[in-house]
Amino acid sequence: MKSVLLNDIGILKFQDIPEPIPDLGETLIRVTKCAICRTDAKMWAQGQRDLVLPRVLGHEICGVKEDTNERCVIWPGKTCGKCIHCVVGMENLCVDMEILGFNKDGGFAEKVCAPQSSLIMIPKTLEDHVACLAEPLACAINALEQSSTSAGDTVLIFGGGSVGLLMAMAAKSMGAFPSIVEINPEKLARSRAFREYLDIRTASSVTNQLFDVVINACPSSETFWPGISMLKAGGRFCLFSGFTGDEVFPVTCLNEIHYKQLRLVGAYGCKRDQMAKATLILNEFQEAARLLIEEEIHLEEIPSRLKSVLDGHTLKIIVNIKPE
Amino acid sequence: MKSVLLNDIGILKFQDIPEPIPDLGETLIRVTKCAICRTDAKMWAQGQRDLVLPRVLGHEICGVKEDTNERCVIWPGKTCGKCIHCVVGMENLCVDMEILGFNKDGGFAEKVCAPQSSLIMIPKTLEDHVACLAEPLACAINALEQSSTSAGDTVLIFGGGSVGLLMAMAAKSMGAFPSIVEINPEKLARSRAFREYLDIRTASSVTNQLFDVVINACPSSETFWPGISMLKAGGRFCLFSGFTGDEVFPVTCLNEIHYKQLRLVGAYGCKRDQMAKATLILNEFQEAARLLIEEEIHLEEIPSRLKSVLDGHTLKIIVNIKPE
Repeated sequence: MKSVLLNDIGILKFQDIPEPIPDLGETLIRVTKCAICRTDAKMWAQGQRDLVLPRVLGHEICGVKEDTNERCVIWPGKTCGKCIHCVVGMENLCVDMEILGFNKDGGFAEKVCAPQSSLIMIPKTLEDHVACLAEPLACAINALEQSSTSAGDTVLIFGGGSVGLLMAMAAKSMGAFPSIVEINPEKLARSRAFREYLDIRTASSVTNQLFDVVINACPSSETFWPGISMLKAGGRFCLFSGFTGDEVFPVTCLNEIHYKQLRLVGAYGCKRDQMAKATLILNEFQEAARLLIEEEIHLEEIPSRLKSVLDGHTLKIIVNIKPE
Repeated sequence: MKSVLLNDIGILKFQDIPEPIPDLGETLIRVTKCAICRTDAKMWAQGQRDLVLPRVLGHEICGVKEDTNERCVIWPGKTCGKCIHCVVGMENLCVDMEILGFNKDGGFAEKVCAPQSSLIMIPKTLEDHVACLAEPLACAINALEQSSTSAGDTVLIFGGGSVGLLMAMAAKSMGAFPSIVEINPEKLARSRAFREYLDIRTASSVTNQLFDVVINACPSSETFWPGISMLKAGGRFCLFSGFTGDEVFPVTCLNEIHYKQLRLVGAYGCKRDQMAKATLILNEFQEAARLLIEEEIHLEEIPSRLKSVLDGHTLKIIVNIKPE
């Protein structure tokens, strides 16, 4: 079958590989669409903690079950089902996790194998190219849930890339009031249609307003201390993106967490039920979500596009693998 | 009436002052017992953010309602009742909080005024000198609740002072498994009877075990990074004590919170319902709680005892103000 295979760091090739064979409990999926994530570009450029080579990348997958012809999206994890995290329904923290597109082959190919339990059937009215945004949206939902976001909460999101924008959409769907801080005018221009459609408040710098929830959907560690300072008492700061940089912070900011009874919560990946929620939100906000899609390309075009994805010069690019 | 009044930092006097007059909604309480908190000693030695002078200190109060002769403990806050925190039941974060013994007169006196809504009636079988531990115990319960501690959780408590010990007792009452780390042999010796009575695991250094919850019941910022490292994925670190020191931390420890989906939660003070729970736990664990009380003294003896409280050379000292 046709695929795009990362043979080594920096070496990504459009090539024929054997069709995958389902393991016990797995199902074969014909991939229809797979969105490109910035992590795909990072793996290509510099590798990643969980990446095992050679690898078919792609973890934002929509497809059709080979056996029943049902349309589905794929929760990209394969879990042990037995560890304490799996047992208590925190399967994104499974100690033996395999991840499609990381250490198990992903969706930049005509077919992919996934555990039956990881398949989420999608609403009839939801189009495949929008449905494949369910995975990043589910990660955003996880951040909002880890932050105990509820209706009426004010939510500040640092970073107006595609995930920050999906997060704002998810916050809206929960009845919360999202604002986005994005300092890059090019990014702001690119997302204008989406932001205006959903009436999302946007600023190019922080204000004096206090928020219930602050989330970093960008890797700048410079957001940490301002973010903590902008929380109401009892507020939550979510570490959604890993921080880069060798900055240090003084112990005194931890006392701010103590006195104002704040919460600094981590969010990593997403859970199956959050992907199911994501498909419902995408179905409801389909018009808006479509505004995040800048381009549909073919498998063989992926290698030439990753540089601009890595540099943050795109919202979402969808790989059109098999027509719907 | 007789009182112990902090006239200025370092100047604490046993003296007669006028009886307090209840404000609207307040009740006059005859104080029977008031426990000494290390914060009382700190206010005497160096002041405190919320301290307004001159002041009757003491916020761990048990007494009798002047109008009905009912025995009660006092939640030491007086709140506005109108701010968002009061409205959602987070009254410990009230923006207009007054605190008995801080910016409103407290329990080192024969009588004290408190809001009717801050009085918690106590079980018949609970003795006054044990009941006055309800306030520090409630603060410990707040830390455990902020940390989402539940039955079966393993809880590591840094610091084996009286609050750390009460926290271990509260954790036991919830069906959790507390361990205490205390490096001071003198403190360990002092708490031996209590720890053995409740069969609380104790270590003088940290081990390789991973915990669901880690709480700092001591101000050493050196507990932060080891504490974070000792959490299971999904675990919670509670900042219960403010940290002292000018240490700095690398931004990378925040990434640990991201990847393992940890929570760093603050805990400050306690809520009314947590004091009500505390009285029930004290009633159930009365035998154990009594082992924390090292001495009962009279009002006029307070000034001579604060130095040793400040230096951490005591568990609980109870001021016996009016015989039960």
